Amino acid sequence: MKQLGKHIILELWGCEKEALDDQPGIEKMLVDAVKACGATLICVKTHKFSPQGVTGVAVLAESHISIHTWPELGYAAMDVFTCGAHVEPEDSITTLKEFLKPSHIDVMDIKRGNIVE
Amino acid sequence: MKQLGKHIILELWGCEKEALDDQPGIEKMLVDAVKACGATLICVKTHKFSPQGVTGVAVLAESHISIHTWPELGYAAMDVFTCGAHVEPEDSITTLKEFLKPSHIDVMDIKRGNIVE
Repeated sequence: MKQLGKHIILELWGCEKEALDDQPGIEKMLVDAVKACGATLICVKTHKFSPQGVTGVAVLAESHISIHTWPELGYAAMDVFTCGAHVEPEDSITTLKEFLKPSHIDVMDIKRGNIVE
Repeated sequence: MKQLGKHIILELWGCEKEALDDQPGIEKMLVDAVKACGATLICVKTHKFSPQGVTGVAVLAESHISIHTWPELGYAAMDVFTCGAHVEPEDSITTLKEFLKPSHIDVMDIKRGNIVE
């Protein structure tokens, strides 16, 4: 079985509240995470909600990285979806941890585009 | 158990090859899908690859919808991730089917942000 894409779903709990509400900081984290996993950035878009919360998406040549934050709960929902053997989504996790400082992460690994050879 | 978000992962196979390579058409499909599931569009970004393939992300007030296409394989990887009781990701599927015309869809339903009450 060949797979076209690797998709990791990250549930980050106990994150630093300020980081979860820091739009420019999250944008930089996304750009750094793209580099860390060897992907190619096409564009990055972030949006700050009121009273709190940030949404961010990095569009990649190899799919996307997304984040949605709930500062009041210390929670961030992230997806790192990449295709191509040269990109490894797990390599982005250290970068995410350094900025968001979660106390706990649940990781789900989903194989996308499964093809019977 | 309360969940913050509903995330459906869609593996669309046997899609119409032209539709999978139609950047403006995919952009319109994303906008229509956002309306269909009752979400609020912040912005939509699409990118056309050469020789083929389109990536698109609709950034929502309620998370995101994404698509990555492989026209040569008739395959599209989509995610519809929404939060809030007023938005139902499954309501977008009819719109996606009408445009991409898949012969087969695998749907995975993932609960995001599970909180023990």
